[in-house]
Order: sequence, then structure tokens, then C-alpha cells
Amino acid sequence: MPDTTKKTIIVFSGDYDRIMAALIIANGALAMGDDVTMFFTFWGLNALRKENKIKVHKKPLQRMFGMMMPRGINKLGMSKMNFCGMGPKMMDMVVKGEGGMLLPQLLDSAIEQGVKIVACTLSMDMLGFKKEELLDGIDYVGVAAYLAEADEANVNLFI
Amino acid sequence: MPDTTKKTIIVFSGDYDRIMAALIIANGALAMGDDVTMFFTFWGLNALRKENKIKVHKKPLQRMFGMMMPRGINKLGMSKMNFCGMGPKMMDMVVKGEGGMLLPQLLDSAIEQGVKIVACTLSMDMLGFKKEELLDGIDYVGVAAYLAEADEANVNLFI
Amino acid sequence: MPDTTKKTIIVFSGDYDRIMAALIIANGALAMGDDVTMFFTFWGLNALRKENKIKVHKKPLQRMFGMMMPRGINKLGMSKMNFCGMGPKMMDMVVKGEGGMLLPQLLDSAIEQGVKIVACTLSMDMLGFKKEELLDGIDYVGVAAYLAEADEANVNLFI
Repeated sequence: MPDTTKKTIIVFSGDYDRIMAALIIANGALAMGDDVTMFFTFWGLNALRKENKIKVHKKPLQRMFGMMMPRGINKLGMSKMNFCGMGPKMMDMVVKGEGGMLLPQLLDSAIEQGVKIVACTLSMDMLGFKKEELLDGIDYVGVAAYLAEADEANVNLFI
Repeated sequence: MPDTTKKTIIVFSGDYDRIMAALIIANGALAMGDDVTMFFTFWGLNALRKENKIKVHKKPLQRMFGMMMPRGINKLGMSKMNFCGMGPKMMDMVVKGEGGMLLPQLLDSAIEQGVKIVACTLSMDMLGFKKEELLDGIDYVGVAAYLAEADEANVNLFI
Repeated sequence: MPDTTKKTIIVFSGDYDRIMAALIIANGALAMGDDVTMFFTFWGLNALRKENKIKVHKKPLQRMFGMMMPRGINKLGMSKMNFCGMGPKMMDMVVKGEGGMLLPQLLDSAIEQGVKIVACTLSMDMLGFKKEELLDGIDYVGVAAYLAEADEANVNLFI
């Protein structure tokens, strides 16, 4: 039976702008008293990476993936008007000028206020991400756990 | 309690092809008697811009964003096979050849038939869009209003 | 009334990575006893094309579209790190190394296990795809049929 106080968001994208949209929706739902679970998968996992390099054993291809993909939420590019990486800086300036929250603040707020942050273990295996490389205090689940939560939610988005 | 006669669509993308998909679904749902609300946010707002330049006060970065982004639904690019802007023209020819509705016609139809067109005020603040620059007769809301509507809907898409 | 055992996924994207996500979710839901319908539309239709060239009558622009778009699930590019087509091969190697299922295996499994695979006829008309060019054993429907199914489902994703 759907529960009107639960929302799930699959965060597939690793783009600055799409992750910002996901976090704004998540924080908004939380403020309205909803339970919110965000499932980070594929490129979305980049937003959960720690900024500093963590020494872990990886297979060669996965090591290469790891080196080529942005390490953490401060390194994400935009899906449009990225301007070789200048786009996110400009967007940050605009957000600050409007008194809004920057991307890392939105993520911190989500975690502190109680949004459930979950990393998809299947994607982690594929891209070669280890738990040590991702933010502390997050959960790790597979697709079955996502589906079980989605069954209980009344809004399920794929971003 | 979900109401089987309501649908919401977040239109995040500003791509010709994704906006076409969103409008086709919205018009289809309306034809079946559903209430439909489309929330235009981020790049999706470009589809709601008036074609002619409107004089409004903007901060420098937002003025630049405004100049670089497409002004209105006739100027959108495609996410694939854009061919430097030729893609949408070719797609228009194909749609006409098949007797289908072009993108602006789909939007006009949606508005006339009663799809609720809503612009996200938070994204407008970020990208520097003023109400005068967007189509007349649309609504302006924040994320809380979206969530309230999504709670009443049984299909909620993010496009 | 929503039925907790039904899921629908609109597969709009033709990207290797997004289609993989869609198929993993679909196969997962099926394994949990759900009914699953995947609606392939726009670029997503490329995943349903037969690999060999099928002789059919097409209008010139549609013939060009058909030639420029990937023919079948083995030819899809990635939305990120495509590396001129090397990305999917590298991802295949990684998936194999992890003992996972490759993209065509995920699709075959979905079909064999009972995921309902549906091609959007409106998109087919636009892109000029004929039934002979798409995989055997799939269904063909319009947007009204999608909406009718989504009304019966409790999770509806747009990928």
C-alpha cells in the first residue's frame, strides 16, 4: 500500500545540474515531513566519492575509470554549458548571489536532516568503487532493496 | 491518497526530443481525462521563454546565461543528432510528413486543452529568468507546491 | 487503484548505460514477482533494432536517420566516457570480470522471463522504423496504452 510520506529518487546522473535538482527535491520533501531515500548509481556515485585519493586495490580498467571520473560533489560537470569546467563555478557564483545553497551544502543538509543516502552495490562493483572511497555514513544496497522501498513510496523518480 | 486521474511531469531537460516526449505524454493523459501538471525547471525553462528579447534587469552572469541559452521552444536543440542545429529542422520535416504536431503546436495544444504549465521559481532565480520573459498565462511555484501535487498524482515522471 | 505488483519504465534513452540501468531494474522487479512493462521510445528504439540491415521502404530523411543511428543493443554508445565507441567495450570487459550479464544478455533475460517489451508506434513513425526492423516478439502500442498501464502500476520511471 503506497505511503504518502515516502519518496525515492534514483540518482543515475553525475551531472552538477541534475544532482542539484535531485537534492533540492529531496530536501524539500524532507522539510514537508516525508521519508526520502536517494539511490546513487552509475555516474551518480561520483557525487559520493571522497575528494582525496584513497589507496585501494582495483583492476586496471576500473582504476582508469576511477582516475577519469570526478572525485566528489565539488568536481562534477554540468550537462549543459559546462564550458570546460567553468560552468559549475559560474553556477556556484549565481547560487551564492541568490543566497542559495551550494551543491555540497545541499548534500550535507540532506544527510544531516535525515535523507537516506544509499549507494548501489552493483554499480560499485562495475565501476570498481570501494566503500572506503565513498562518504562515511551511507548505506549500501542492491536493486531488490530499492524496489522494496519504491513499493512503499508514492513518488519515485529517476534522475 | 493517490488519485488515478492526476499526472505530474518535471521537465528538467531543454532538449527538443525530451520536451517532445513530455508534451506527447501530457497531451495523451489530458485526452484520457487526467489532470496534468508540467513543472518546467532548469533547462526546461528555455522552452517557456518568449522568442523576442525582453528588457529586464539582470546580473552579469545571468545575462550571459540568458544570451547563450535558446530563447523559446522553436530554438531547442536535440540531445542526439543535433547536427549543429539542423537536427530539429529535419525532425520537424519528418513530423510534418507524418502528419504529426510540431513542438510549438504540442505546447499550444497542452496549454489550450488545460495542462497546467508551471515554472519553477527557484530555477528562475538561479538562471536569472524574469516572469516577463516567459510565456503568459503560466503559473509560478516552488518545490513544495510540486511535491504537494505529486502526492495527489499516481504517475510522476522526471524528464 | 495502484497495484503493488506492476512497474512501467519508459526507455527514452538509447545510451548503453541508461539502458543497462533500465534492464537491471526491470529484471530485478521481475525476480521479485512484479509485472514489468518497458516502453521503448525515441532513441530507446535503437536497442530493439535487428543487427542486420532489413530492406524496407523509407522516406529519405528517415533512411538517413536509420543509417546514422546504432543498429541494435550491441552498437549503443555510452552517455559518458564513450571514448569514440571504446567505452562500451571496456564496460563489457568490466561486467564480464565481475561475472555480470552483458547488455544483450540482460535484454534476452528480460524477454525470456516475461518483461513485456513494447515499442512506441508514434516514435517509430517519426524515426521511420518498421516492424520488420525490430526484434521479433515485441508489442507495439501508442501513448494511451502506456498511460493505461502506468495507471495500474505503483512505480513508473522515465529513463
